[in-house]
Amino acid sequence: MNPVVTLLTDFGLRDEYVGVMKGVILRICPAAQIVDLTHQVAPFQIGQAAVILRSSFRYFTAGTVHLVVVDPGVGTDRALLAAEADGHRFVAPDNGVLSLVLPAGAVRRVVRLDPSRFCRSVCSATFHGRDIMAPAAAHLARGLPLAELGSPMEPNPMPPAGWSPLRWDGKGRLAGSILWIDHFGNLVTNIGLEDMARLQPTGEERLVFTVGSHRIAGLSRTFAQVDAGRVVALIGSRGLLEVAVNRGDARRLLGVAQGDAVHVIKEEKT
Amino acid sequence: MNPVVTLLTDFGLRDEYVGVMKGVILRICPAAQIVDLTHQVAPFQIGQAAVILRSSFRYFTAGTVHLVVVDPGVGTDRALLAAEADGHRFVAPDNGVLSLVLPAGAVRRVVRLDPSRFCRSVCSATFHGRDIMAPAAAHLARGLPLAELGSPMEPNPMPPAGWSPLRWDGKGRLAGSILWIDHFGNLVTNIGLEDMARLQPTGEERLVFTVGSHRIAGLSRTFAQVDAGRVVALIGSRGLLEVAVNRGDARRLLGVAQGDAVHVIKEEKT
Amino acid sequence: MNPVVTLLTDFGLRDEYVGVMKGVILRICPAAQIVDLTHQVAPFQIGQAAVILRSSFRYFTAGTVHLVVVDPGVGTDRALLAAEADGHRFVAPDNGVLSLVLPAGAVRRVVRLDPSRFCRSVCSATFHGRDIMAPAAAHLARGLPLAELGSPMEPNPMPPAGWSPLRWDGKGRLAGSILWIDHFGNLVTNIGLEDMARLQPTGEERLVFTVGSHRIAGLSRTFAQVDAGRVVALIGSRGLLEVAVNRGDARRLLGVAQGDAVHVIKEEKT
Repeated sequence: MNPVVTLLTDFGLRDEYVGVMKGVILRICPAAQIVDLTHQVAPFQIGQAAVILRSSFRYFTAGTVHLVVVDPGVGTDRALLAAEADGHRFVAPDNGVLSLVLPAGAVRRVVRLDPSRFCRSVCSATFHGRDIMAPAAAHLARGLPLAELGSPMEPNPMPPAGWSPLRWDGKGRLAGSILWIDHFGNLVTNIGLEDMARLQPTGEERLVFTVGSHRIAGLSRTFAQVDAGRVVALIGSRGLLEVAVNRGDARRLLGVAQGDAVHVIKEEKT
Repeated sequence: MNPVVTLLTDFGLRDEYVGVMKGVILRICPAAQIVDLTHQVAPFQIGQAAVILRSSFRYFTAGTVHLVVVDPGVGTDRALLAAEADGHRFVAPDNGVLSLVLPAGAVRRVVRLDPSRFCRSVCSATFHGRDIMAPAAAHLARGLPLAELGSPMEPNPMPPAGWSPLRWDGKGRLAGSILWIDHFGNLVTNIGLEDMARLQPTGEERLVFTVGSHRIAGLSRTFAQVDAGRVVALIGSRGLLEVAVNRGDARRLLGVAQGDAVHVIKEEKT
Repeated sequence: MNPVVTLLTDFGLRDEYVGVMKGVILRICPAAQIVDLTHQVAPFQIGQAAVILRSSFRYFTAGTVHLVVVDPGVGTDRALLAAEADGHRFVAPDNGVLSLVLPAGAVRRVVRLDPSRFCRSVCSATFHGRDIMAPAAAHLARGLPLAELGSPMEPNPMPPAGWSPLRWDGKGRLAGSILWIDHFGNLVTNIGLEDMARLQPTGEERLVFTVGSHRIAGLSRTFAQVDAGRVVALIGSRGLLEVAVNRGDARRLLGVAQGDAVHVIKEEKT
């Protein structure tokens, strides 16, 4: 069985950085199947990477190693981690990028990587993805037990920026924000199905969503429930509220940006 | 032998959508070799995907499974298909994206996917690429016979927009259009070698091409037959007429766009 | 053991060109592990590709085949090469793109590809990456000896543009240039650690770097040695001098471009 290693970085695809990490992984674990999640996280945006990882890892086979290199602190004394949780394995800097997959209270094992076990003859001060994290991920994929990568530690619990708990004003109004805008211009929010369930609309009530000056009445199941070019609110494929335009681009149509506020209220059906 | 699965989508590379589909495929068929054709089809442009697939699939080994997810109709009642033709296998929405590889009259087998056979515990209403088509492609790659994926059906025969039959005015003039502009700025047309053969120029005649106000006399064999920076017409690597600039960018130099008209006439050599 | 084949091109990712080359490779060598170095070399920029290859190939396992298709001369009489050096194998046009990995004087074996051994029924005049170089790389990966791909020849020795020897004015001043600007906006220069060593600063001296009107005193080890938003000079992960901004974008902050001059001097510590 070929072990799977996923890669999630902010490296982009213009440079050789991603290719070189794959070379390092394949030297150590020639049977690895390497899959790119994305390399187009905005530079240094830990929160974006955390959400993408949360939305992705469960679709992979148990035992997959997920290597996340969004590392603005390279060269500081931030730790590097390897972890096991939910039957998956993770390697990343200890900067909160794993906070959504290693939540406090979960059953998990975390070790602090000992760089000296992974560096080849010389270790760069600026590319620990290549020189420490990729080797660690490859050794895990090859079967090295987690405990041999370093010593147990407690990871940074801080949630990534943008993923802060929803505000809830007690008057039936939920305040979240746009976490991410996808390739199609769909607005992905930090409001989950379970958050909306707390609004408990009665049979005479419906949910109403506001983004900027735009108002969408009712939750749809699919894009196609509205005409082409019209705005729709639905639970997207990540289990999060999305505001979209059927066969169109909500970012452009609504003129909104990442971080903008999104509100949910309930009101009487008319 | 590792089965090959190709992916062709309009998902772009910023989100985790492509990576997650690969995770789903590798769970079901761990030996799959997954190859990206491109994920940068313009959103919802079925015609572009159809032409790319037509230009690509024969370069892969027999038995390859080609998964095409350009699916503006997700959430409508459009069918999802699996098919076999020419020794290759295809999975896609029934929206015409396969019309150039499953032409009417060809020997082919087509089934309508039964979603209930592929969805895991729960199936999203917005990402059938992940929840139905990727599992179907993976099962085909693993060896499941086509007939077990669904019931026989006749696919949508409509050719994609832009691929309409060439107009031919009987006065030795052929009217086509720019189907696609590639990364280098080369203008790929919908005019094939066989179309031009119908003009049957004599030894005293040559073909002349017009794009916008630009006129190119004679068909070249390579870019380098003209000086750097000059415009050239040739049969490109897809077997289609291309207008290009040697070591330059024809889109910029000629100021043209996808969909613009291209004409071919024959005239006396001077 | 699965042979590794790397790809380095200026094809971009919008078209099917890269995918089709992979299809061709996997038909001939189904066990190949194919890794993208990058496909976003600027069109026809041989020098960029040469530097990326030089920075990458040693991270791959011995025996890896590196296929480089940056080929503005397709259709001219430029030769196509296959080569072995340093335990690695290379396939590329003979246009200088291999000059940094096959330097004059190195132990190496180079053959001129005989196209007739690789073309299938018909060979395009415009896509030798697909029709000649990808098959040659795949046959090498499968185990065909280099000598069977063509006849011995001497490769083009010209270094790529931008990689010219550093100027050195004898007054303790070294003049180089910006070779490449990476995804993060870091300025990668053509000045290596060994070049700077020749400045031999004493204990009372330090190195000072100038880029445009900007001056950076002292060489740092990591980005994080300066505050966020400040400029830093360091030896980057390629072993070359880089000018960067901690958690920022040096290209934007300094307003510089590829090719701009970079100077190194030594001066008294203050």
